[in-house]
Amino acid sequence: MQLLTVGSVAFDAIETPFGKSDKIVGGAGTYISLAASFFNRNQALVSVVGEDFPTDVLDGMVNRGIDIRGIQIPEGGKTFFWAGKYHNDMNSRDTLVTELNVLGTFDPVVPMEYRNAPFLMLGNLSPDVQRKVVEQMEVRPKLIAMDTMNFWMDIALDELHKTLKLVDLLIVNDEEARQLTGEYALKTAAKRIMDLGPRLVIIKKGEHGALLFSADEVFYAPALPLEEVFDPTGAGDTFAGGLMGYLSIQDDVTFDSLKKAVIAGSALASFCVEKFGTQRLEELTKNELDERIKAFYTLSQFELA
Amino acid sequence: MQLLTVGSVAFDAIETPFGKSDKIVGGAGTYISLAASFFNRNQALVSVVGEDFPTDVLDGMVNRGIDIRGIQIPEGGKTFFWAGKYHNDMNSRDTLVTELNVLGTFDPVVPMEYRNAPFLMLGNLSPDVQRKVVEQMEVRPKLIAMDTMNFWMDIALDELHKTLKLVDLLIVNDEEARQLTGEYALKTAAKRIMDLGPRLVIIKKGEHGALLFSADEVFYAPALPLEEVFDPTGAGDTFAGGLMGYLSIQDDVTFDSLKKAVIAGSALASFCVEKFGTQRLEELTKNELDERIKAFYTLSQFELA
Repeated sequence: MQLLTVGSVAFDAIETPFGKSDKIVGGAGTYISLAASFFNRNQALVSVVGEDFPTDVLDGMVNRGIDIRGIQIPEGGKTFFWAGKYHNDMNSRDTLVTELNVLGTFDPVVPMEYRNAPFLMLGNLSPDVQRKVVEQMEVRPKLIAMDTMNFWMDIALDELHKTLKLVDLLIVNDEEARQLTGEYALKTAAKRIMDLGPRLVIIKKGEHGALLFSADEVFYAPALPLEEVFDPTGAGDTFAGGLMGYLSIQDDVTFDSLKKAVIAGSALASFCVEKFGTQRLEELTKNELDERIKAFYTLSQFELA
Repeated sequence: MQLLTVGSVAFDAIETPFGKSDKIVGGAGTYISLAASFFNRNQALVSVVGEDFPTDVLDGMVNRGIDIRGIQIPEGGKTFFWAGKYHNDMNSRDTLVTELNVLGTFDPVVPMEYRNAPFLMLGNLSPDVQRKVVEQMEVRPKLIAMDTMNFWMDIALDELHKTLKLVDLLIVNDEEARQLTGEYALKTAAKRIMDLGPRLVIIKKGEHGALLFSADEVFYAPALPLEEVFDPTGAGDTFAGGLMGYLSIQDDVTFDSLKKAVIAGSALASFCVEKFGTQRLEELTKNELDERIKAFYTLSQFELA
């Protein structure tokens, strides 16, 4: 089944305690579609880049089964650029540079061929842009998932609430869930988020795994205890991409299927952090991914006495 | 199989954001043996109390199958007293009062009938006292488990290292594991702890579950997402007690059995925090416990695609 994603395609410059990257290709849309391509090769990406963006990277997307007709390249435009530096604990980072460039005036256009895509992923972007994508759909997708961040809660909370009403699944981290709801206990926060629209909530807890909530079920996905995180950039987007790639190819949004999708996303994210940027995902084989999913299984399964 | 525990029996006065307790019965030995009694009614507790300690509480222990001949009651002595106040996040607390009383000069004596007990739990106490118990065993137990805390790392690190050499399983929380090893990544910390003696390590992460490590296996036990934690006092001891109660009754220390034991301990701990002190555990039924263990199963099990 078709998977449509809207999300940024960007240049990143990353500094971690382990080193410093050049200006490399990043952005939520990049990670989401790359991760999803391990499951689904029938997807499209809606985004915007500048004329400075390397065509071989776009060619690479096409080779992974990603339709790029929804990626605008405004004349004379420059690609969105973000530079950041992670602290020693890898859990927090400082933004050093944000140059919105073409993203600042991005008006998304969903290609005609994808206006009835059954799976829609709204990568982290202004809630306004996210909503414009939903409004272009001619058939209501089976599943609309959405990422967001504290920034939009600070400066565009009303817009965010409007978009939340339109989606099925919100994917946020623990801090974001707490800020959005004012609730500390994540179970309570998930309930409050459901009051805002989504019937499904995923709360990511980094090295502590992720929680998936529906109105009456909960699933705790573990995280692999890693000895080293090299670069966390893109891990959240990779999680969402793996999740939506898996769900869209199964064409099944039952809770059991969602659980497996959370594990698929977690497995992909665990690779993402092993190298700078998209490097590890680009060299990853399907076989390695299957082995990692089995490792998550072994990690968390037990028998009832 | 016999389970022998050494641990404090105390009076606690607890303040949480939800209220304030009277002077109630607490202490690691109390929680451990109470939790273990849900599985094993063939256990003994080595401890010390003052003449001010209520005999009906000791009678209650006997009724739960806990042999109390190892609990000393020195003439004129006063029971160990601890008062503490939890902060709003429930993850940190201030100690308001510590009166060691009879615990200050505690010289443990293991009753003859338990000197070949196959399961031994060393509750959090000075590493010196813990070692004295191990040294009284006439047959090396099948499994010696040990709890400790930052306090002993600060003031008795050499003694702690000596005791660590004698045990099979160390149970600590994430902060303690990091302080003991100087390693931030918990997988690396577990390896360093194994270099110090134990062949098994459990690292508790509170609301994020617990990790069980052997030399070549890992298990991630989830935590139930709770809407409210009323009083965290004793949760760690309850976890250890449930774990050792389960293992000793199974008489099986394979990794598969340890996984189930970690879940049993987690389930009991999830009840412990629902009310002040031991109250919830005292009214808990075996049926409620079995249901909670099933909830942990549902929470974390998934199928491989």
